[in-house]
Amino acid sequence: MGKKNKQFVEKITAMEDDFAQWYTDVVKQADLVDYGLVRGTMIIKPYGYAIWENIKDELDRQIKETGHSNVAFPLFIPEGLLQKEKDHVEGFAPEVAWVTHGGDEELLERLAIRPTSEVLFCDYYSKNIHSYRDLPMLYNQWANVVRWEKTTRPFLRSSEFHWQEGHTAHATEEDASKETDQMLNVYAEVVENYLAVPVLKGRKTDKEKFAGAEYTLTIEALMHDGKALQSGTSHYLGTDFAEGFDITYLDENGESQYVHQTSWGLSTRIMGALIMVHGDNRGLVVPPRIAPTQAMIVPIAQHKEGVLDKAYALRDQLKDLVRVDIDASDKMPGWKFNEYEMKGIPVRIEMGPKDIEKEQVVLVRRDTGEKEFVALHELEGRLPKLLEEIQQNLYNKALEHRNEMTTVATNMEEFKQTIDEKGGFIKAMWCGDLACEEKIKEDTTATSRCIPFEQEKVADTCVCCKKEAKEMVYWAKAY
Amino acid sequence: MGKKNKQFVEKITAMEDDFAQWYTDVVKQADLVDYGLVRGTMIIKPYGYAIWENIKDELDRQIKETGHSNVAFPLFIPEGLLQKEKDHVEGFAPEVAWVTHGGDEELLERLAIRPTSEVLFCDYYSKNIHSYRDLPMLYNQWANVVRWEKTTRPFLRSSEFHWQEGHTAHATEEDASKETDQMLNVYAEVVENYLAVPVLKGRKTDKEKFAGAEYTLTIEALMHDGKALQSGTSHYLGTDFAEGFDITYLDENGESQYVHQTSWGLSTRIMGALIMVHGDNRGLVVPPRIAPTQAMIVPIAQHKEGVLDKAYALRDQLKDLVRVDIDASDKMPGWKFNEYEMKGIPVRIEMGPKDIEKEQVVLVRRDTGEKEFVALHELEGRLPKLLEEIQQNLYNKALEHRNEMTTVATNMEEFKQTIDEKGGFIKAMWCGDLACEEKIKEDTTATSRCIPFEQEKVADTCVCCKKEAKEMVYWAKAY
Repeated sequence: MGKKNKQFVEKITAMEDDFAQWYTDVVKQADLVDYGLVRGTMIIKPYGYAIWENIKDELDRQIKETGHSNVAFPLFIPEGLLQKEKDHVEGFAPEVAWVTHGGDEELLERLAIRPTSEVLFCDYYSKNIHSYRDLPMLYNQWANVVRWEKTTRPFLRSSEFHWQEGHTAHATEEDASKETDQMLNVYAEVVENYLAVPVLKGRKTDKEKFAGAEYTLTIEALMHDGKALQSGTSHYLGTDFAEGFDITYLDENGESQYVHQTSWGLSTRIMGALIMVHGDNRGLVVPPRIAPTQAMIVPIAQHKEGVLDKAYALRDQLKDLVRVDIDASDKMPGWKFNEYEMKGIPVRIEMGPKDIEKEQVVLVRRDTGEKEFVALHELEGRLPKLLEEIQQNLYNKALEHRNEMTTVATNMEEFKQTIDEKGGFIKAMWCGDLACEEKIKEDTTATSRCIPFEQEKVADTCVCCKKEAKEMVYWAKAY
Repeated sequence: MGKKNKQFVEKITAMEDDFAQWYTDVVKQADLVDYGLVRGTMIIKPYGYAIWENIKDELDRQIKETGHSNVAFPLFIPEGLLQKEKDHVEGFAPEVAWVTHGGDEELLERLAIRPTSEVLFCDYYSKNIHSYRDLPMLYNQWANVVRWEKTTRPFLRSSEFHWQEGHTAHATEEDASKETDQMLNVYAEVVENYLAVPVLKGRKTDKEKFAGAEYTLTIEALMHDGKALQSGTSHYLGTDFAEGFDITYLDENGESQYVHQTSWGLSTRIMGALIMVHGDNRGLVVPPRIAPTQAMIVPIAQHKEGVLDKAYALRDQLKDLVRVDIDASDKMPGWKFNEYEMKGIPVRIEMGPKDIEKEQVVLVRRDTGEKEFVALHELEGRLPKLLEEIQQNLYNKALEHRNEMTTVATNMEEFKQTIDEKGGFIKAMWCGDLACEEKIKEDTTATSRCIPFEQEKVADTCVCCKKEAKEMVYWAKAY
């Protein structure tokens, strides 16, 4: 690392020294968030929000393409309504923020601020679904939700966060379970192809599933420090909510049936994955497909005649091709290099008097630091290609890291040693008993992340109890 | 009105009979909203939300184009913070919803759910603005806010509503006042050119201005029933908040100065204007530029061979040109006509066996009911033009209505009589005294809507006290 990068090397903690502090430093120094006044809340700043908007826009496009409509349901849930589904209320009640007064008046019934909106959609569906012709109902909303968490960190766990929550009702179990699969695939597609974060797809154990769900599908990603992050979940709710809320329809034979429901959500938490999968000791690294600025032009010796004119002309030439910006402020180029490395802008375009003379520019990749000289007349061909190469490289590097950090364990000694010394995902067989799952968590602090769709038989017996194994499970310490 | 429309004529109340009931009927029958469980909250349904998203997308584009960045600030305001600006808290405290508990614990300080976010941005600005180089700060957020209103109606006044709120800080009064003007113009541009709703631009009286503002600019629209609707406001906050929150910067001479601030908002309330300006006794009328579906294909005698194939082919032919959909369900064409008239879809395209034979379609305008036969090979040229004609016609009709419903009053008898018998806007001179403004409201229930930028001297003396007049004011009963 050259001398010019010293400034930030000193400003942010090295990830090897203190990963949690590195995370906090990046989040602050890359101008993603600031802390809110109320414990555990966050202010998403312009740069952080612009990245989130790019993720949101692509996910929204795919949600609509798969036939869903956006809606806006209320923020408030009457206390009585929340209590209608037993498992659900038990899961969420401890972290609910309660509204008790409107103006000077005490309310007759307390209002929960939605921690998630299943019960609101269920109440609506119970009133608006009558016949099989009304199905499926395919609703989604982009909303803020509140969960009163004890320990909070920006993006990863905040008292208020932003997400989309899909809520659907179907005539048959088959339709609903297809929907559950489909939306998990949409999440995997967006996270892998846009955020360049490889994910494991699988099912949660009963212990880890959503409160009120029959089963939960999940995508799980691995962070730099070897901990896992649940990155999006899709729940098959079966008919439990329908029974609790009396959501029925008349089928083609005129018989009353319960609907089969799903819900699925992806939140600002995914920003944490972006940071912890691609970031390095110089700061954030943003994959080109979701980067608000894909290329930043930094003029060199800009006081010299013609340099700024040429730099602006370059910006105008490129602006319909890629998301390009220019920093023509009077700060030193070295300061600018550090600033845009910290912000993780995929490509820096340097252009000085010598480059102008040679009719070229210098392209510097954020991911590898490699420089290349490109003739001006070749730039429009080269730059988009380079951005794609960076996108691919980020994905490949992350996948390689995950592969390196995935270890098979066939007994608890291996399991514990790997978790303690190396971290990452552990592939181990499980008998299916809650007791073993709980014991593993107690002994190792690792939790079951998912029962992957792609099963491998890495042993015959449960890693914990040594009884006959049923399934292979990915385990990890997790955020 | 033909026989085929009977069904809905009976379903919705005529606006002449009961305008308020007509409004409620349209809102429900056109599938825009449903009532939430908590008093005064609403569920914005897919069709209503799709219209709002089109408005939002265009406004968001213009907000970004004028240099603003989107951010996300927290939902909660600590009680102490809300009290920092005296006028502001007095204006909003009576309608604040209070959070008192998180999970089982009582909070040490109550949290207001934001009724608007000035104080949150001020706190942030006080910590993040240091030098003139940090200015201007041009932030915007799309958010939900809560105001505990006594009397509520969908879109017009709901306990929770959705809006964007811009919050900016500037070095000088001049910059801030230019910003205040600019954002009012953005609102006027979106409302006039996209919603086809003509607006009056002007300043609010001190009585009607935003709590805490130095002055408020407003756009005011006139509804079918002769009542006005405030449709967007832009506030110049001066340095009052800056003084309360200690938001200072060092100017180029190293001297500490207070920033000059603005805030501005446009909300889902604008959906009320859309309904009440263009709607009629057959339902909603949506201007083409914000219509989720601009043209609906209704096949005629679709059981006959080839009809559906041709209709789908037509849809595919048009889909890159306009937002087109097809209703190939087995409902009767008459039912479909009514349904899409109720939903206000700008153009219906009918296509039956005879049309196919003649290689033509029938276009039916929602705004005038006029039919025209268009040869298939001319449709791609004709349809976009027709949509523009409809857009223009809606605007012109609304402007004509406003002009007809605008009356000069030079004394209180004229004023009262006009308000009672005709409604609409009254243009009348005002001395500038609060006493007269209050008396006018008491005697007529009309309030001052704005002091228009385009002043006319319609008399020499105040309509109320007969002392020397200072300004002409638009008055009206208002939502």
